[in-house]
Amino acid sequence: MTGIPGFWAVIPAGGSGTRLWPISRRSSPKFLHDLTGSGQSLLRATWDRLEPLVQERILVVTGVAHEEAVRRQLPMLGYDAVVGEPSPRDSMPAIGLAAAILERRDPEAVLGSFAADHVITEPENFRRAVEEAVVLARQGELVTIGIEPTHAATGFGYIRLGEALGVDGAPSAHRVDEFVEKPDAETAARYLETGAYRWNAGMFVVGATTLLELLAENHAEMVDHLRTIAADPRRMRDLWPALQKIAIDHAVAEPAAAAGRVAVVPAALGWDDVGDFAALTTLVAESTDLPGITAIGPTDDILSIDSTATVAAGGRLVALVGVEGLVVVDTQDALLITTPERAQDVKKIVEALTAQGRTELT
Amino acid sequence: MTGIPGFWAVIPAGGSGTRLWPISRRSSPKFLHDLTGSGQSLLRATWDRLEPLVQERILVVTGVAHEEAVRRQLPMLGYDAVVGEPSPRDSMPAIGLAAAILERRDPEAVLGSFAADHVITEPENFRRAVEEAVVLARQGELVTIGIEPTHAATGFGYIRLGEALGVDGAPSAHRVDEFVEKPDAETAARYLETGAYRWNAGMFVVGATTLLELLAENHAEMVDHLRTIAADPRRMRDLWPALQKIAIDHAVAEPAAAAGRVAVVPAALGWDDVGDFAALTTLVAESTDLPGITAIGPTDDILSIDSTATVAAGGRLVALVGVEGLVVVDTQDALLITTPERAQDVKKIVEALTAQGRTELT
Repeated sequence: MTGIPGFWAVIPAGGSGTRLWPISRRSSPKFLHDLTGSGQSLLRATWDRLEPLVQERILVVTGVAHEEAVRRQLPMLGYDAVVGEPSPRDSMPAIGLAAAILERRDPEAVLGSFAADHVITEPENFRRAVEEAVVLARQGELVTIGIEPTHAATGFGYIRLGEALGVDGAPSAHRVDEFVEKPDAETAARYLETGAYRWNAGMFVVGATTLLELLAENHAEMVDHLRTIAADPRRMRDLWPALQKIAIDHAVAEPAAAAGRVAVVPAALGWDDVGDFAALTTLVAESTDLPGITAIGPTDDILSIDSTATVAAGGRLVALVGVEGLVVVDTQDALLITTPERAQDVKKIVEALTAQGRTELT
Repeated sequence: MTGIPGFWAVIPAGGSGTRLWPISRRSSPKFLHDLTGSGQSLLRATWDRLEPLVQERILVVTGVAHEEAVRRQLPMLGYDAVVGEPSPRDSMPAIGLAAAILERRDPEAVLGSFAADHVITEPENFRRAVEEAVVLARQGELVTIGIEPTHAATGFGYIRLGEALGVDGAPSAHRVDEFVEKPDAETAARYLETGAYRWNAGMFVVGATTLLELLAENHAEMVDHLRTIAADPRRMRDLWPALQKIAIDHAVAEPAAAAGRVAVVPAALGWDDVGDFAALTTLVAESTDLPGITAIGPTDDILSIDSTATVAAGGRLVALVGVEGLVVVDTQDALLITTPERAQDVKKIVEALTAQGRTELT
């Protein structure tokens, strides 16, 4: 078993995850943490999911500050399997550089880009979807995986399905009519009802060279710079900082979709982007020994009397008496208390700390 | 100004304050802490209040384990101003021993016993009440100070006023008809309505010898033992452990009241026994720089977004986002989250920890 021939996994490991503060910090972002209590970090779980598909054909793109932590969590990675970004430039430069590196290693390379900090509970469905996507990518398509929505989420963008493509080896593929932004609740409910929408999880499968060609249509200079860096990494220093900060969605996926050039493989993945503590609360099962308590991590340090809460203990005793519907996150130097309903506003704490100059806590 | 001649203050500094865990611990009980954010501990505030009345005529009775901490907080105390109890025997042995010691130092001594862990916001009223009480005590009365109730409290015992006594120098004194136990809410409301009830704060003013004579009526052996220990402290070791654990209320005050031998001086003291975090929440003013937050201690380490809470930060950042009506108490090794409504049940956490053998946290 050697995975899918010629298929490479690219893992952009970036983002600060400020809505998951105080677990997620600038110095130790979300993807490095075992947020779901699975026993392994989100990054490691991502690698575990991809390894059967790609063997050693894997490339992690991360901030230079996190290279060491990434290598500690993934000690099996070879020297050239980690690419360090000198500064965050959003997803397009990160994935574009990976494409430029991969087309030099394998001109026929098809890459699949999957974030380091998402959760997937149906790895078999993921595998089947990727296999279909690779078939389409080999025919020159830019392919995305469209997640079957399980509720009328307002926190994700959506993909509107077009006609079925009827491609051999990719029976579930459709054309993408349009990528649409995060909807309001009413719109989301309508999307769910029509059955024609899928969540956009930012998963793209595409030939390395195809991706760069699509990018060159609107950002030719960026492609030049990325290929220059791939050929001579010493050029990273002078070329990288000037690259436009832009997401792959805006740089490539949306214009290509508008031109009818994007395919989608719908799939039910049990996917979540673990965006905030409300998401975490639904992802983690209630503790069996502490009724009402959803524990992120061990329960030894939690005492609960008549309480319901999601609790991440941080090495000290957390005692709850008669409180309901809280999220409690305890760490060495900071404690957060909020509710699932207000979980989105946790980023405001990080903003306030930054404004106060207390960046050692962010 | 030398205070009230011949008047001695006795400060029983005991009790574990388990409803104020995790601030109050066996190893560092309630009275050693600055619970109200006044800048000084409850013990030190008690001393400050009494010192003008007694100068150096003061005796602190505390557990041997806390003698050192008491002396650290009250460095002005002389060698013989602190009496260490080898084990807690409730208030009667503690105050009785103080009486036995004082009658040896001054056969005419009148003592006033005032707990180390209560709050009084009207020290002038306190002073006037004590002055009246001493006048009555010199006439052989057992005198209590009856606190004017400010609400229909169910957490305190009450004193039912009898006839006015019309004693020179003690114009507000009444006979005590009866001490009554903590009432239910309905009964408490009725007590408040009649105007004939005062809170029992456990404050007694009485001649040292008078107290021992009253005690001897039902507990003659205890009085013998206490006088033996006072005469020869080496006997503490063998006699103390066998003394009956009993409160001064049951041992002396209630039977004496039933016999019409207790007087009461009513007073409005702004008194509270700081029994739990609900009491603390009402005692401490809302922070001026953090709307909605009542801070016990400094506010530097508290960040609040749309939240209301009473917060004791313990050296780490406490961040609240959209939570209401909480009590948050953070310490080095334990965190408590509860509500004022459930503050009484905090002692259940201490019970659970004790049952689990985790006494290092109690």
